[in-house]
Amino acid sequence: MSSPTNPDPRARPASRADDPEPHPGFPVERSERIYDSIWCGLRRDVLRLPGGDLQDYHVVEITDAVVVVPRLADGRYVLIWQHRHPHGRSHWEVPAGRMHADEAPEAAALRELREETGYACGRLERLSGFFPVNGISDHYAHAFVAHDCELEGELQLDRAERITARVVAEQEVRERLLAGDFQDGFTALALFQHFARAHGIAGAEG
Amino acid sequence: MSSPTNPDPRARPASRADDPEPHPGFPVERSERIYDSIWCGLRRDVLRLPGGDLQDYHVVEITDAVVVVPRLADGRYVLIWQHRHPHGRSHWEVPAGRMHADEAPEAAALRELREETGYACGRLERLSGFFPVNGISDHYAHAFVAHDCELEGELQLDRAERITARVVAEQEVRERLLAGDFQDGFTALALFQHFARAHGIAGAEG
Repeated sequence: MSSPTNPDPRARPASRADDPEPHPGFPVERSERIYDSIWCGLRRDVLRLPGGDLQDYHVVEITDAVVVVPRLADGRYVLIWQHRHPHGRSHWEVPAGRMHADEAPEAAALRELREETGYACGRLERLSGFFPVNGISDHYAHAFVAHDCELEGELQLDRAERITARVVAEQEVRERLLAGDFQDGFTALALFQHFARAHGIAGAEG
Repeated sequence: MSSPTNPDPRARPASRADDPEPHPGFPVERSERIYDSIWCGLRRDVLRLPGGDLQDYHVVEITDAVVVVPRLADGRYVLIWQHRHPHGRSHWEVPAGRMHADEAPEAAALRELREETGYACGRLERLSGFFPVNGISDHYAHAFVAHDCELEGELQLDRAERITARVVAEQEVRERLLAGDFQDGFTALALFQHFARAHGIAGAEG
């Protein structure tokens, strides 16, 4: 298995010559801890605005995550039917989860794939990562395709996870993606990237 | 301007006949308020697991948001070069923001478009919405394309926003999208959806 390495996977691709200079941002006058836990943190930064006024800016602290598109050698995909407590519904996703302490993104991707689908991966391909909610958090998602997946065993779920895995034809994945059936943003964005990398973005100019 | 209506835009598309039954979820034994503010809330739900054990599940409460892809009649797009305090960098996005109280998604989309680009929209097209971080929040993003945009005036920014708008050729938007230059998940997912709707998902089976 190959694990592409990148010294700073959160870095932007190189700027273009005509990109503007970065905006300067606002000085942080002080920062207050609101909440700490092993699951998430919350802080309030007090920003100094031009002119001198202060403004609160809340930042949610969540460990970075991985999302993995599992693909079999025959071109089918593994989807998971998952219950999500925050909105109370079940829907189709691809495996995803937060990285453990000191865990590399690639290792986290393989672990989540194994736990949530029962499959092991032949080769990991890195997609572009993203900030899912960068208005309120610097939480970052590392995205991958797991190629040549092979069934290895049973799912290994946390006690608070409810997941069923299913192997699905590529055409059905594409149809669901276009229909908006993947309401989980991690899943939809990783799948769009995967198809665009494999085939380009459709259209006259693509 | 047409405003497509939908009685519950957060609803999933209709289930397929062979979708599994929804998972039952876990009973909420009790729920504790950790934090409340006009910006966000945080609560701890205590879930009753099978077997009787309890497990904490933290839920971040954020008002739903909109994201808008601004397209001109000549086929170019408006991007914004925005500073994001949580990660401290500037990058290219499309307009987005949270809905005001009692504000419809379409109205919020037009308002954010006007404030963050200076453009007004001829026709709104609804894309599929998404849950950006449904492992920790039921925060939902309504996505749109704003067609036939025309410049109306200056940007109208909140004091804690740093934004520069620029009109960009379609080819450059596509290149940046494929290169992973849109690290904001809202932006990348709305653009992928827009191009896929207009042209299909590329590839033999698309």
